[in-house]
Amino acid sequence: MYIILVYDIGERRVAKMLKLCRQYLNWIQNSVFEGELTLSQLRELKMKAKEIMVSEEDSLIIFKSRNEHWLEKEVIGKEKNELTHFL
Amino acid sequence: MYIILVYDIGERRVAKMLKLCRQYLNWIQNSVFEGELTLSQLRELKMKAKEIMVSEEDSLIIFKSRNEHWLEKEVIGKEKNELTHFL
Repeated sequence: MYIILVYDIGERRVAKMLKLCRQYLNWIQNSVFEGELTLSQLRELKMKAKEIMVSEEDSLIIFKSRNEHWLEKEVIGKEKNELTHFL
Repeated sequence: MYIILVYDIGERRVAKMLKLCRQYLNWIQNSVFEGELTLSQLRELKMKAKEIMVSEEDSLIIFKSRNEHWLEKEVIGKEKNELTHFL
């Protein structure tokens, strides 16, 4: 499953969340990640994210698409993560 | 066409970019927007965004899906924009 993940997390927890998301997904900008995950990997990631988050303050949005080809990505301006060239 | 837009923009230009994106899309988190646009609206938005952006510093990523139903959205934690409840 193709995933786009964006978070808005309190400063004190952001380093932990960044580290967690990088274990599962490719960082593409600021607090935005993308990648291919299985259902069980996604479940794992969400569980670990919830442990880091303060639910009244922090927010995590996950977009899921069953097929990466249903989504087209366009980058304008600076390519922040060189890796995205190869995706 | 269903659009997810994320930007990473220098502080001096961020207010302008926020205002522009809100004219075309729904703000859902931090620097993340979503909504339905026609091709010509998207072209217009990109043209105006490029006028605001400094291309060596700023970044804009646009995900396009021909059908909103190909994407499933899940929000964990705080719902930052109450409007998304009705989308």
